[in-house]
Amino acid sequence: MTKFKVGDPVGVGCYVDTCRECSNCKAGKGSYCRKGMVMTYNSKMKYPHCGVGYNEDASKQEVTYGGYSKDIVVDMDYVCKIPKNLPLDAAAPLMCAGITIFSPMKYYGVKKGDKLAVAGLGGLGSMAVKFGVAMGCHVTVLSRGTKKKEEAMSRLGAHDYVDVTNPEDVAAHQSCYNHMINTIAVPHDIAMYFSLLDIDGQLIMVGVNPKPMEISTFSYIAQRKSLCGSFIGGVKECQEMLDFCGKNKITCDVEVIKPDYIN
Amino acid sequence: MTKFKVGDPVGVGCYVDTCRECSNCKAGKGSYCRKGMVMTYNSKMKYPHCGVGYNEDASKQEVTYGGYSKDIVVDMDYVCKIPKNLPLDAAAPLMCAGITIFSPMKYYGVKKGDKLAVAGLGGLGSMAVKFGVAMGCHVTVLSRGTKKKEEAMSRLGAHDYVDVTNPEDVAAHQSCYNHMINTIAVPHDIAMYFSLLDIDGQLIMVGVNPKPMEISTFSYIAQRKSLCGSFIGGVKECQEMLDFCGKNKITCDVEVIKPDYIN
Repeated sequence: MTKFKVGDPVGVGCYVDTCRECSNCKAGKGSYCRKGMVMTYNSKMKYPHCGVGYNEDASKQEVTYGGYSKDIVVDMDYVCKIPKNLPLDAAAPLMCAGITIFSPMKYYGVKKGDKLAVAGLGGLGSMAVKFGVAMGCHVTVLSRGTKKKEEAMSRLGAHDYVDVTNPEDVAAHQSCYNHMINTIAVPHDIAMYFSLLDIDGQLIMVGVNPKPMEISTFSYIAQRKSLCGSFIGGVKECQEMLDFCGKNKITCDVEVIKPDYIN
Repeated sequence: MTKFKVGDPVGVGCYVDTCRECSNCKAGKGSYCRKGMVMTYNSKMKYPHCGVGYNEDASKQEVTYGGYSKDIVVDMDYVCKIPKNLPLDAAAPLMCAGITIFSPMKYYGVKKGDKLAVAGLGGLGSMAVKFGVAMGCHVTVLSRGTKKKEEAMSRLGAHDYVDVTNPEDVAAHQSCYNHMINTIAVPHDIAMYFSLLDIDGQLIMVGVNPKPMEISTFSYIAQRKSLCGSFIGGVKECQEMLDFCGKNKITCDVEVIKPDYIN
């Protein structure tokens, strides 16, 4: 152990091990490990370097219990430092929602001055607004109805709000945005969302939909748009995200409950 | 007229005018003109600078007849030089199929050493193979059955061929390609095509499908892939494409027929 000392505030993300040998692992893209991650919860400890839970016989490999454990043993290469100015409870979800949003924003080149739309204002969407504002983007929340407008603009700092159920509001925001972080995890009218993107705009999907969505070719060909995806992120960029959060005092909105309240 | 002289071999592409004022026109992205192109055929001459066919009253604007005319009058800014070493008949479709393929290959960064897949081997697909080979890519043709294998590899110079109806062939080429030019203009199993792309791979759609296609989120999120589009290209990059073709002796495969054979 060379990276941390006793008492350091640290965080463990969505995975605790990967094959460590494939080109993606070697490039720091652990969440895209070609042989598959060992997730932090309910995942078989399938690699020899996993620790005590590994067994050559796959049926005897132990399962990870993640956030439902009192203790956790994790290789230091899968652990990040939490900036000391952030409260641990509100920083915890950064290890999942935070990196899931931060990683594609960096990879797809979201930068100062860009017009960023955020579709859906749940756990992921609120992180996208916070990161976008901190990066110097002009941030617009897209949501159904107006009930989240106050939260989006007054509390989270978004600069604009579009009620996507209002045709006039949608018409007034055609071809507006350079990037859209789409967190909507149910099927939706993707053509309408594409229409809000400007030429060369990226619709970055981080909400996993249970069903395939129908997408018409012309909705993205006509103004050279892209439908992009991203899945969690690497440990190194997770540390970058945490440092960014420390610098900008960004945490998640949490409600702390007791374990017996979970069910 | 300052750009051409009598006798120069020239070509006119898919459009003969645009608004010339929007940010896309000013950036040389004429095919994405925000007010709409005047296409070379069957398009209303809706801009004052169109020439004699324009009328303030939209119902009296003349229509373009493009390639079915004996003569054509076009502003020099919408005309390209055809390299003198290329035969005019086989160079003609470069102004449509050529630029439609060349533009996204440049925009999405296809480069020497990349593994490029070409889905569908019609007019657009054969140009993608020729450009890919000339750019130094490793080019694989994806097609149904094996009847196009000889043409793809022996005549067009592709390096590999995958019969997408053969499950073993598909299984052997999972996560193989950096880019895929998809020219298939009918609905198809997009998840299977995504599965052939490597991490960060781009599925570049240039075939316009008549119906929306069903696309599952996980097929592109899991390895951070993109579904991209592109539509024709600008005049300046069309000239670049023609110069590239002249240098690499690339033309289209044509069958020359008489006008009375068209119908």
